[in-house]
Amino acid sequence: MTIREAGQALRMRRMTVTELVSAAASRMERLNPALRAFITSTANPAIERAHQLDAELVAGRDRGPLHGIPIAHKDLFLTRGVLTTCGSPIYGKFVPAYSATVVERLEAAGAVMLGKLNMHELAYGITSANPHYGAVRNPWDTERIPGGSSGGSAAAVAANIVYAAMGSDTGGSIRIPSSFCGTVGLKPTYGRVSRYGALPLGYTLDHMGPLTRSVRDAALVLNTIAGYDPKDPSSSRHPVIDYMPDDGCSIRRVRIGLPESFFLEELDPDVESAVRGALARAASLGAEVKSVRLPDMEAVNAVARVILLAEASAVHEPHLAERQRFGADVLALLDQGSLLSAPAYVNAQRLRRMMCRNFRQIWSEVDCLVTPTTPNTAPRVGEDVVRLGGRDENVRIASTRLVRGFNLLGYPALSIPCGLSSKGLPIGLQIVGAPFEEGLILRVGAALEDGGVAIPPCPYS
Amino acid sequence: MTIREAGQALRMRRMTVTELVSAAASRMERLNPALRAFITSTANPAIERAHQLDAELVAGRDRGPLHGIPIAHKDLFLTRGVLTTCGSPIYGKFVPAYSATVVERLEAAGAVMLGKLNMHELAYGITSANPHYGAVRNPWDTERIPGGSSGGSAAAVAANIVYAAMGSDTGGSIRIPSSFCGTVGLKPTYGRVSRYGALPLGYTLDHMGPLTRSVRDAALVLNTIAGYDPKDPSSSRHPVIDYMPDDGCSIRRVRIGLPESFFLEELDPDVESAVRGALARAASLGAEVKSVRLPDMEAVNAVARVILLAEASAVHEPHLAERQRFGADVLALLDQGSLLSAPAYVNAQRLRRMMCRNFRQIWSEVDCLVTPTTPNTAPRVGEDVVRLGGRDENVRIASTRLVRGFNLLGYPALSIPCGLSSKGLPIGLQIVGAPFEEGLILRVGAALEDGGVAIPPCPYS
Repeated sequence: MTIREAGQALRMRRMTVTELVSAAASRMERLNPALRAFITSTANPAIERAHQLDAELVAGRDRGPLHGIPIAHKDLFLTRGVLTTCGSPIYGKFVPAYSATVVERLEAAGAVMLGKLNMHELAYGITSANPHYGAVRNPWDTERIPGGSSGGSAAAVAANIVYAAMGSDTGGSIRIPSSFCGTVGLKPTYGRVSRYGALPLGYTLDHMGPLTRSVRDAALVLNTIAGYDPKDPSSSRHPVIDYMPDDGCSIRRVRIGLPESFFLEELDPDVESAVRGALARAASLGAEVKSVRLPDMEAVNAVARVILLAEASAVHEPHLAERQRFGADVLALLDQGSLLSAPAYVNAQRLRRMMCRNFRQIWSEVDCLVTPTTPNTAPRVGEDVVRLGGRDENVRIASTRLVRGFNLLGYPALSIPCGLSSKGLPIGLQIVGAPFEEGLILRVGAALEDGGVAIPPCPYS
Repeated sequence: MTIREAGQALRMRRMTVTELVSAAASRMERLNPALRAFITSTANPAIERAHQLDAELVAGRDRGPLHGIPIAHKDLFLTRGVLTTCGSPIYGKFVPAYSATVVERLEAAGAVMLGKLNMHELAYGITSANPHYGAVRNPWDTERIPGGSSGGSAAAVAANIVYAAMGSDTGGSIRIPSSFCGTVGLKPTYGRVSRYGALPLGYTLDHMGPLTRSVRDAALVLNTIAGYDPKDPSSSRHPVIDYMPDDGCSIRRVRIGLPESFFLEELDPDVESAVRGALARAASLGAEVKSVRLPDMEAVNAVARVILLAEASAVHEPHLAERQRFGADVLALLDQGSLLSAPAYVNAQRLRRMMCRNFRQIWSEVDCLVTPTTPNTAPRVGEDVVRLGGRDENVRIASTRLVRGFNLLGYPALSIPCGLSSKGLPIGLQIVGAPFEEGLILRVGAALEDGGVAIPPCPYS
């Protein structure tokens, strides 16, 4: 069921919010021991809140499409009065006195928080194999990782526990787990969604966004969280629109760019054929699919990595003296960042400005770009290396290589499921737009979804 | 004579452009061997150009207030076809193929470039004791430094060679030499004036602006150079106004903030009394002078120094392998910057954003700030230490401590002469405004100048 379907059921009195939330809570309780998707359950206050929201509906107070919808937040969003670990023992007893802006907005819109979601430690990695709170498992195959860092978010949505989950994306952390778990994941434009009250990882790369089961559900959440926030000076005053794609929306004449070089190289063959299939569907719906050449993406990724290494170490340096409080992979990255020189960072930011200028011209040629989200499907837990295009590649490098660049550039990017591999694993399609063109990429995603580019529900139960 | 006076003489045919430029060229030729203010003379093309500009005036083509006015550029502004050394042997044979935007705009306005001005090597220091092109001397006392890094600009204006000179200011490099040489120096708001074609020193701290003999002359130059430049993406689209203060402009009810703590501590007593005298004059003209407390300026200076060290090393790192091409002081600073860590720079920029937010509230209390420009008057050539407030202080640290913060904050800041010390050396008054309030600080400066806050012309000949 999607948010829209659940919302209809609530309003037709086929179901109460209390029933909806109780069912979600039971499912969480039953599935979480194996999935390790939640660090903290807030099922009890959620059911209290459900009673209130039922009373409101009865009294004719309808908060809108998220009224009564069970959701959950990646555990780096501060939640007033609720433990917020950031997936790290450093924050193992941290109970914030205030909530992140996105948490407040979703609460005001009537969404019901069921708990706080497990994640890669400090959001700094893509496996979500958290050494402190347990390795999150992929509901499509619990021997596999869900991706990360928003791994708990993707697992909880894919396993039908919650309808939507908030995640964060610094180098792919919403889109990678969406790709591996078959969910929809939206990284909005840099500055589109407030970051106030979210643990930073890379100041100039962090983006907050939803993971959902449908494109229109992602639009519903974006409608609630988008917009300027005086508490976050990096948030944008660019006007907010209604992001919801029309029913039966058309993509006739939408110019879709396919950057074959780099983005269609060294892929799992199942990924390539699913992506080409989705593009054929787009063309059959009237879109103009054309091949485009982007500036050097290897260089973009290299610059993005330097900036992330430096910024993440700046965030966490105060804690680095207590080395035993970090997992080995995170510690290695933090040490690398500490050893980077200031001029290297300054030059990386300078290159970034040049790259942003060079990329801009692509938006005169096309309206969006379509690529695979990841070159691979979900790797096995503990697997360090993946074989792609005849060579072995580090799992983190492989999983981030098609997504990380759009954090550097700040463009909005959506991942939708576009097929299953021969092993029955989800495959993700990435749709990238020009700054603040969330409306367009959601429309393209919705039209493809309407047109049958989709996967069956995750069979995990 | 000021630009306005020279312009009147030209238009009343009391003088030709050729005469004006020839006189300036002779004076440059005569004085430069002692002052070392110019690295390159363009006297011959200047006289050619003067003929053309005379012909234009005769033909009724008047380019405006700068038509026929002799000026010069600090040698870090690229000038098409003219050697541009940046005060360094690295650029010792560099003849650019294009000109800086400010150079082009001034040329189009009819100003006549007489030459390229000596400076502190790579603009990275405040003595202008250039080891490669000679130590610039202060025309008020040739045993003393002119300040820097725009030392040649200040010396050439103070010695009445040119009517205006362009300088750059990354940590005080326009205002310090203006203070030491008794010129007017304007550092506009960050982004107000294009930096295209100027050698960078600190990407996020560099500002370009004029040094002149009167406040209204600075306004004339600003009117020509201010405004968005598509070639400089960091330039601002904030609307440009006419910056020229009215004749007899009033400062009645202008709220002047005097930040006594930090800015009036550990000064040369002559500086303190001249500044207090100027403030008394402002009060007698109807301004409301009130004491204000600013956030921690020591911290602001510390953050500005970290950012400059990192950014300057990023600019010059490609050349650092050839160590003999740098002067000892510049090399020491570049080495310091190379050793800074990337997280230190990231955190400095983060602190900067907080400081900018904290400072902003001052503009609800006052319209401008008035402080000394430098705590000292011009030190002797070779002097490393200056005694202020009973303790010895490094000359560079002392000279920058009251000006550097406004590079970090990006505020416009004007230095005007406000008296002579007991040794007959100029004393500078700094007037600082809110972002894009150049109009206001120029008006305050002009009103003080009209009201007698001024010094006699430099007697050097």
